[in-house]
Amino acid sequence: MRILMINPNTSAGVTDILAARVREIAGAGATIVPVTGRFGAPYIASRATAAIAGHAALDALAEHVADCDAVYLACFGDPGLAALKEVSPVPVVGMAEASCQAACSRGDRFAIVTGGALWGPMLEEFVIGLGLSDRLAAIRTVAPTGDEIARDPDSALGHLAAACTACATEDGADVVILGGAGLAGLAVHIQASVPVPIICSVEAGAHAVFAARHRVQCIKSPPIKDSIGLSPALAKLLGIA
Amino acid sequence: MRILMINPNTSAGVTDILAARVREIAGAGATIVPVTGRFGAPYIASRATAAIAGHAALDALAEHVADCDAVYLACFGDPGLAALKEVSPVPVVGMAEASCQAACSRGDRFAIVTGGALWGPMLEEFVIGLGLSDRLAAIRTVAPTGDEIARDPDSALGHLAAACTACATEDGADVVILGGAGLAGLAVHIQASVPVPIICSVEAGAHAVFAARHRVQCIKSPPIKDSIGLSPALAKLLGIA
Amino acid sequence: MRILMINPNTSAGVTDILAARVREIAGAGATIVPVTGRFGAPYIASRATAAIAGHAALDALAEHVADCDAVYLACFGDPGLAALKEVSPVPVVGMAEASCQAACSRGDRFAIVTGGALWGPMLEEFVIGLGLSDRLAAIRTVAPTGDEIARDPDSALGHLAAACTACATEDGADVVILGGAGLAGLAVHIQASVPVPIICSVEAGAHAVFAARHRVQCIKSPPIKDSIGLSPALAKLLGIA
Amino acid sequence: MRILMINPNTSAGVTDILAARVREIAGAGATIVPVTGRFGAPYIASRATAAIAGHAALDALAEHVADCDAVYLACFGDPGLAALKEVSPVPVVGMAEASCQAACSRGDRFAIVTGGALWGPMLEEFVIGLGLSDRLAAIRTVAPTGDEIARDPDSALGHLAAACTACATEDGADVVILGGAGLAGLAVHIQASVPVPIICSVEAGAHAVFAARHRVQCIKSPPIKDSIGLSPALAKLLGIA
Amino acid sequence: MRILMINPNTSAGVTDILAARVREIAGAGATIVPVTGRFGAPYIASRATAAIAGHAALDALAEHVADCDAVYLACFGDPGLAALKEVSPVPVVGMAEASCQAACSRGDRFAIVTGGALWGPMLEEFVIGLGLSDRLAAIRTVAPTGDEIARDPDSALGHLAAACTACATEDGADVVILGGAGLAGLAVHIQASVPVPIICSVEAGAHAVFAARHRVQCIKSPPIKDSIGLSPALAKLLGIA
Amino acid sequence: MRILMINPNTSAGVTDILAARVREIAGAGATIVPVTGRFGAPYIASRATAAIAGHAALDALAEHVADCDAVYLACFGDPGLAALKEVSPVPVVGMAEASCQAACSRGDRFAIVTGGALWGPMLEEFVIGLGLSDRLAAIRTVAPTGDEIARDPDSALGHLAAACTACATEDGADVVILGGAGLAGLAVHIQASVPVPIICSVEAGAHAVFAARHRVQCIKSPPIKDSIGLSPALAKLLGIA
Repeated sequence: MRILMINPNTSAGVTDILAARVREIAGAGATIVPVTGRFGAPYIASRATAAIAGHAALDALAEHVADCDAVYLACFGDPGLAALKEVSPVPVVGMAEASCQAACSRGDRFAIVTGGALWGPMLEEFVIGLGLSDRLAAIRTVAPTGDEIARDPDSALGHLAAACTACATEDGADVVILGGAGLAGLAVHIQASVPVPIICSVEAGAHAVFAARHRVQCIKSPPIKDSIGLSPALAKLLGIA
Repeated sequence: MRILMINPNTSAGVTDILAARVREIAGAGATIVPVTGRFGAPYIASRATAAIAGHAALDALAEHVADCDAVYLACFGDPGLAALKEVSPVPVVGMAEASCQAACSRGDRFAIVTGGALWGPMLEEFVIGLGLSDRLAAIRTVAPTGDEIARDPDSALGHLAAACTACATEDGADVVILGGAGLAGLAVHIQASVPVPIICSVEAGAHAVFAARHRVQCIKSPPIKDSIGLSPALAKLLGIA
Repeated sequence: MRILMINPNTSAGVTDILAARVREIAGAGATIVPVTGRFGAPYIASRATAAIAGHAALDALAEHVADCDAVYLACFGDPGLAALKEVSPVPVVGMAEASCQAACSRGDRFAIVTGGALWGPMLEEFVIGLGLSDRLAAIRTVAPTGDEIARDPDSALGHLAAACTACATEDGADVVILGGAGLAGLAVHIQASVPVPIICSVEAGAHAVFAARHRVQCIKSPPIKDSIGLSPALAKLLGIA
Repeated sequence: MRILMINPNTSAGVTDILAARVREIAGAGATIVPVTGRFGAPYIASRATAAIAGHAALDALAEHVADCDAVYLACFGDPGLAALKEVSPVPVVGMAEASCQAACSRGDRFAIVTGGALWGPMLEEFVIGLGLSDRLAAIRTVAPTGDEIARDPDSALGHLAAACTACATEDGADVVILGGAGLAGLAVHIQASVPVPIICSVEAGAHAVFAARHRVQCIKSPPIKDSIGLSPALAKLLGIA
Repeated sequence: MRILMINPNTSAGVTDILAARVREIAGAGATIVPVTGRFGAPYIASRATAAIAGHAALDALAEHVADCDAVYLACFGDPGLAALKEVSPVPVVGMAEASCQAACSRGDRFAIVTGGALWGPMLEEFVIGLGLSDRLAAIRTVAPTGDEIARDPDSALGHLAAACTACATEDGADVVILGGAGLAGLAVHIQASVPVPIICSVEAGAHAVFAARHRVQCIKSPPIKDSIGLSPALAKLLGIA
Repeated sequence: MRILMINPNTSAGVTDILAARVREIAGAGATIVPVTGRFGAPYIASRATAAIAGHAALDALAEHVADCDAVYLACFGDPGLAALKEVSPVPVVGMAEASCQAACSRGDRFAIVTGGALWGPMLEEFVIGLGLSDRLAAIRTVAPTGDEIARDPDSALGHLAAACTACATEDGADVVILGGAGLAGLAVHIQASVPVPIICSVEAGAHAVFAARHRVQCIKSPPIKDSIGLSPALAKLLGIA
């Protein structure tokens, strides 16, 4: 089984962290094909950079999906997820979508903790789009972005643990998602000091993509007749889907 | 890996159909431990029989969960699901909950087709409880109950296919769940005549239970001090949870 | 007029408290037929014990409903309410349903105060099921269960009054329901120290059951053909409904 | 017990129909004090006439509430209900509010049938305001207004029965409210030809007002210091509330 | 262009403040026709006074709408707005409706700050009626009524600024509406001390009414046949609409 | 006043149609600066092409916003609207957002008619994001895309009129938005055969952008430190915003 793992920002370092963690989870049974966004910002922390990342994710899928069995859109916030599902020949799993589903099957109300203040309203809109807003207890952000946390995780652990604990004790969450590619693997380090279970978003997405490989997506784009300025692979994908 | 598969109604024949299908999906890597409800109705097609089945499912879990790694509540409608999650030492997956999540990750709006008219409003309440009502395009029921369909599937295929097609063409569903233990395996027989993908609820639940084995549930009942008239195993489970 | 008053837990002492209070409200015009659950836990403070109580309430109704004019499901949280309505030959009123309706007709937003921490999310789901979540200002629970409060009400009054006051001053409730069989009659003792009206759930349910006696329920279960392990009365009720 | 029954339109004939029906329900134990709106339209079938009726209902309450134990706002649509509750010294029950609550306690989903096309969206807004929109299956209006139906009920029975039946068979309602003062007493004439129970709104409101007499309202207007052009009784009520 | 500006309370002083501010915004291109309510309370701070103001606004429109091109219902809370839209021959804009739309097009979540405690739940219902409740971060009221603020604005500025700031920092609002005719022009005085943009409701409504002049309303009342006690102009408007 | 009018697809012909219509509405007082997307599909009829268009709209804004007073995102569906608002130095108005607000201020429930089947669920999600889903009566699409309609409008008029009429008579809409750049100016041709008012989305957006020029947006992106593969103007805008 080959998994196309798309990091839609332009930080190859984040892609490496993600690939290492997903390979650990996958074991010998799966090959991970990691790809970094070809254009855009090194981290996504606003609607503007997320909009560009949606295009970059489509571009990456078009270039690399051949011979893969499933696609893991490995950015918490899932930029372009619905668009990728439309055109992909194989199943696509988003990191935030999978994390929210896993959280809902484990408790009544879930919370999200992530880095970067603008992600708060962006993720709230995302959860509304999933239809799960009544299950959401809170979203709490810490000041450093996911990118900054990835570069210096130790100094962020205390803030993340405090935010997770506040989700449980003040907001009534039964379970907390630690969201973000840059936060891969941090959940185990703070679980002991948080009174409710923590879900690592990178792991939740990875488990979901392994389970999704038999699925066929339901919505397909009509082919377009021509295009301007897109990569040849993306133009081809949109024209023959 | 050992999966406790609970059929909370009292039809051992339905349990056999379920176990056969789940064993096919599981392959050699998992042992399926099928259990039939110890009391209640032979099929569940009303709130009254579902209420009794919630107790029967708890009773079955208490008796058989030892040495199992996960629990599959294998009745579409998931009677007692929240109660089982509270007291189970291992993860619990409900057939309808898993099916609705799988449907939401594949399309914008999903529909449910099942047998037995009273299931319509009961499942609508269930979907509202999941928080997914805005994603639900329609629920359509056919007249025979799941139990009757299981005993004579051939005569039901036409009605089921027509209902699934109507969900797509009249209600705007992108994907349809064919719900019910008694309908295990029928999806493949009608897929060709339905314009959108069909999810077999028995399979969706099985895939989810295999993926859920690492999860820990988030809500735990406080122990009760005594009880009357419960099975010894259930009394013990409630008293030491 | 004969009212079947079902206490679906197994504490005969709580049944006695309830019956005394409902008889006071009823006066000479009604006969109260109190029944205690035949099996289950002595108090209900979790989804697991509530699931068993739903079966016990059905069992009690089946055994005792003959010659009664209405049924009062006298447990705040109304375990099995929809199931009882399906099979009962006479109207059924739930304590929590009636309390929430009374609260909504008196103010914009209501709150609930009750005993036992797990009741918080359980009642929130119940209110969502009624469709009244936008009218709900807050649910606040105090640590002792309703059962413990019933055995030592004096030591709980201060905590209950503080919680009711917080619902008004911090959560913006116009009216507070003091919910739970074990809290029968306590509202009058704390009203003076709370700035908004308090509704006693036991009284609200009693008033509603007297008013409901002319109603016919709208949903009826289809009869089942056989069953296993149910009381003869319940099996008969399900088979001939 | 004295009930102030306010008909906020200016048709004394409708007031007489209402008073006769409410007296039948009340029996010897209650005195009905019927009042007709002092100004406004003879029937209410638009937002404009309803806005005027809200003022007229306040005006009537101010003039006649002394010595009464409860107020019945006897117009389906309840113009001014929240305003009356604010200033009334005794409980106020609205015909539509009471009918919707009775419907919700009897079935999963209810429908409303009434006369006058503009009432459709007005009642939909009213039900949203109650928080019960998820329980509403449909609102169907017939062309004649309530006033016209009251003057020639026989010719309307067929249309009303057909609309009620469509609510059940096409819209999935478990119970239908026949709404409107002018439709008092018609429910029994069409029940036999409709497959689900019909609630007469005049009766539902009357039962609720008898049950509400012990309630105190929760929201009180701050007194105003002066006013222009209001009746002396209304000016006094607003200034001393 | 002639704008009928209706102040539906009976304070001519507030009308003067409003007219001055709207004339500044309008410049030479529009003539403002200010009208004060003919009956009712000098300020609106409860549902009861708002109900009377709905009638007064209709009465004012009927008397003065001839030769006007649009109507500005210049009271934050928009009493009678839907009724005015029904019967007006020209477009009608409500101050609160226009302010909420302007806020939604500028940020994710908006808040409202106004004077008079009862306006809190009244405005919450208003926003629910607009369908915008998910966009509403908070409503905060200060103790003085809008009328009192208009008479002594300097002493209120500190409280208003603190409330606006709390909406941003505690409630997460991106933009705050300073609502109320009596607060016209105060936004500029407190903007410097508030971390998010403030919308002056009087200005937002004025901009909207200038833009709305080409619109035709969609819902029209059926004419009534006679009426009692209404002004001749209002009776005529209702009878010939 | 200079308005930057962005057509985010790559059809210069559609840009010309839009610019002509907006210039008619603007008159002499405004200069329209029309821009066509630099890359992407010639028409947008799927989530994939919309995702690319969001990037193209950002790219166009970055290149051309200097010296403009406001931005009109002139594509019904508003790809990238929230992202543009974040980074724009001047107000941004989306065609669909403005149309839905105009519709809501004119009637209770609105409908949308547009070209291209996939736009149905995409626009439904858009309306949910605005918070206006309870006001939406229906979305009906006709088979030709907006692009095809623009090239041969005459043959589409009948289908569009029929869809608008069905929104009114079957779905209960009070007002219908004829949505899409390619449908500019068609509303007047079909209004006579449709029983409710029709809003031309191009005009509604144009009116809103003229009114919005004094607004400041509320949410601002944090600057990014570097980027890959973006146009110099866009990289600069993201880095200095």
